[in-house]
Amino acid sequence: MSVNEIDEQGLGPQARRSEATKRALLDAALADMEATGEASIRITKILQESGVTNGSLYHHFGSREGLVQAAIAERFLGSVTKGLAVFAHRVGEVGSTEQLFEVFRDELVRIGSPDVQTQRIHRMTALAAALPRADLLERIIADQGRYFDGAADSLARLQEHGFIRFDVDVRAFAAWFLGLSLSRLLSDIDPQLNPDNEWSEYTFRALVAILTPAPSAH
Amino acid sequence: MSVNEIDEQGLGPQARRSEATKRALLDAALADMEATGEASIRITKILQESGVTNGSLYHHFGSREGLVQAAIAERFLGSVTKGLAVFAHRVGEVGSTEQLFEVFRDELVRIGSPDVQTQRIHRMTALAAALPRADLLERIIADQGRYFDGAADSLARLQEHGFIRFDVDVRAFAAWFLGLSLSRLLSDIDPQLNPDNEWSEYTFRALVAILTPAPSAH
Repeated sequence: MSVNEIDEQGLGPQARRSEATKRALLDAALADMEATGEASIRITKILQESGVTNGSLYHHFGSREGLVQAAIAERFLGSVTKGLAVFAHRVGEVGSTEQLFEVFRDELVRIGSPDVQTQRIHRMTALAAALPRADLLERIIADQGRYFDGAADSLARLQEHGFIRFDVDVRAFAAWFLGLSLSRLLSDIDPQLNPDNEWSEYTFRALVAILTPAPSAH
Repeated sequence: MSVNEIDEQGLGPQARRSEATKRALLDAALADMEATGEASIRITKILQESGVTNGSLYHHFGSREGLVQAAIAERFLGSVTKGLAVFAHRVGEVGSTEQLFEVFRDELVRIGSPDVQTQRIHRMTALAAALPRADLLERIIADQGRYFDGAADSLARLQEHGFIRFDVDVRAFAAWFLGLSLSRLLSDIDPQLNPDNEWSEYTFRALVAILTPAPSAH
């Protein structure tokens, strides 16, 4: 195998084909889950859609359940990491408490966008599907933990600069905020509520109360 | 049918038997869901456990899907109403902002108890199961809406007395808080977190920030 066949992820042609097969199976499984949940995943349909053989499916995922779990884990992680990258980038540029709250204001607007509403439904569904499956739950807890760590790293820098209260456990706060952003789903689905107004306003007041440093003594 | 055969719900013997049959089917379905989710519900097992005939199951619920949906709706509503009764009773006795925050402190302790942790998992699972099912979702939105209404009624009285900020939309706040209490699940499952400390503390600071009335002008 010549060097120019190695791609940017360090994969040769065979490994690339293997990755492409896995990707095709996962995409077909995710597309099936889209409409009516995991119960609607039909192996025959997935094989048709992905153009992959039955043997290849079992080689990569072991079983239907293996494929379902991989699709659910991917769905959970995908929505989580997308949000984190945006947030971490913005937080990296913050130079005061006021600027941090501007980032949070924008984040609350982003959380209300149709794309993120769909991701929220995916996250909620993936989490619920993982709860009765010990292996999958462990994987999702690990994925989620990496998000908490990432968000905590961004916030720790602000804490060192005194832009947020020194006694806040930034990782626990990240977990609190990630949970709260997921919980907006309850307000989204109630036609009597306008989450872009009230849910966002209460969340913003909460963030200010939790993070604002005490005024300095002088 | 004589009057003394009518029970406290106004049901005669036949209606009582019918209710008992429905109850037995729902309990068997809920017990099956307990272990591994709705996919594990086996109609033959449910008929054995409940001692109900197949014809009776279809009479009451129309189909396996009908029974599954009724069990999920019951599971969602059951956990929601239990919490509301406790909360509404305590809020009814509140005579100051400080007393309200004491009630919330106790509520946060209650939310951390093993019973409520289990209910939280049930609520999350029921909600996720309802998302791809239009009829069930509508029912769950209605159930949830009644909780929001009930909690809002309790809080509206406090608002009239000036114990909470006058410009808070108490129904939207109830939705925000119910969502937040559900979101604790994310902190519960991460072994690196202690939600009884940080999650509760951040939530308490949030409640104080959102509800505390402005100091009076004189």
